[in-house]
Amino acid sequence: MAAVLLLSGGMDSTTCLWWMREQGVVDIHAVTVDYGQRHRVELEHAAAVARRAQVAVHKIIRLDLTSIGGSPLTDGALHLPAAAEDRQAVTVVPFRNMLFATAAAAYAETAGIHDLYLAPVRDDYEAYRDCRREFYDGLERALQLGATADTTFNLHTPFVARWKSEVIAIGLKLGVPYADTHTCYQGRRPACGRCDACTERLQAFAANGAADPLAYEEPDPSA
Amino acid sequence: MAAVLLLSGGMDSTTCLWWMREQGVVDIHAVTVDYGQRHRVELEHAAAVARRAQVAVHKIIRLDLTSIGGSPLTDGALHLPAAAEDRQAVTVVPFRNMLFATAAAAYAETAGIHDLYLAPVRDDYEAYRDCRREFYDGLERALQLGATADTTFNLHTPFVARWKSEVIAIGLKLGVPYADTHTCYQGRRPACGRCDACTERLQAFAANGAADPLAYEEPDPSA
Repeated sequence: MAAVLLLSGGMDSTTCLWWMREQGVVDIHAVTVDYGQRHRVELEHAAAVARRAQVAVHKIIRLDLTSIGGSPLTDGALHLPAAAEDRQAVTVVPFRNMLFATAAAAYAETAGIHDLYLAPVRDDYEAYRDCRREFYDGLERALQLGATADTTFNLHTPFVARWKSEVIAIGLKLGVPYADTHTCYQGRRPACGRCDACTERLQAFAANGAADPLAYEEPDPSA
Repeated sequence: MAAVLLLSGGMDSTTCLWWMREQGVVDIHAVTVDYGQRHRVELEHAAAVARRAQVAVHKIIRLDLTSIGGSPLTDGALHLPAAAEDRQAVTVVPFRNMLFATAAAAYAETAGIHDLYLAPVRDDYEAYRDCRREFYDGLERALQLGATADTTFNLHTPFVARWKSEVIAIGLKLGVPYADTHTCYQGRRPACGRCDACTERLQAFAANGAADPLAYEEPDPSA
């Protein structure tokens, strides 16, 4: 079976990649979106894990969200939120997941593939409405109605009901190379260890009693 | 009332723009997608009609569909279909309308606007599944589920049940400057007059007993 995976190079989609391999999906086409992100390191991590997983194809799709505007993840002039602030309001280009999923579906259709895997986790949908399965059901229906031919199109979200800590538990068993994955909102290497994304990541490893193999900055002694 | 219109600079979306003005929509944000089209003239036409209509905002969003691949409308190496060939199979980047509509919706949400107008016509959905209202109902639902806040999001397709010739009849009454609109698949000025798009356009004017104000190439005497 052939399938497309939307691969960001973060922990969740990378775990999904290893999980798909374990499920016997042999012809995996990983799609990474270059959306003009400030931290280009994310793309390098996606390429690194795709290589490690020996995917059939690693496709980069350029979707320049900077021309839509409004998100601090693409706009260098905007303030990045700390963990305590409301993330939904400021870190998201509206409908970003929908754009990414639709672009990945477009690639899938050109490749004759009708199965698309995405890796939202339960923690995400606590903050983002478009990480809920209800949303993906709607999106799957729109894709089925809009496909070039009257075809089945399946959106798979195997981790949508699982917490990030559970996903990491799966990945630790499967030997996911978490040192190659990227998380930090600041795009730093070593990772900042303080932003929302780093905080969530560290908590998820801690919940598994596992050490995160990623390098983190030393705490700032002046802080 | 404020609204976003997906404006290609072609006849249908330009007619929709004049129709919206007549309906009393005063704060119109026109969104044109720069998708890497081979005929850049399309963008100039969109800008020209937006200026003529004195829209509040004309926003260009870049979505580089060339990185998805597969369509002769963006790939210079592929063969363009003549009128008799199957259009659906070859001229479409899969889910292109969905990507464009979603990007326009993303812009709308950043501008605090919850109404998006699109101008598919009945002739389109005879050839393209994603020009049917059934598809737009699905897309509207996905947008409502995926919006940042729990909000209403309305997709308007006022011409979806009308033939192109009927749409032009409306536009002729409203004084739409059809000389400023772009149609030709070849991207030529004067227009080729022979491609699928030119053929449909000329037929639609003929059905109204009206002359198309656009300049066309003289027929090739050697042909």
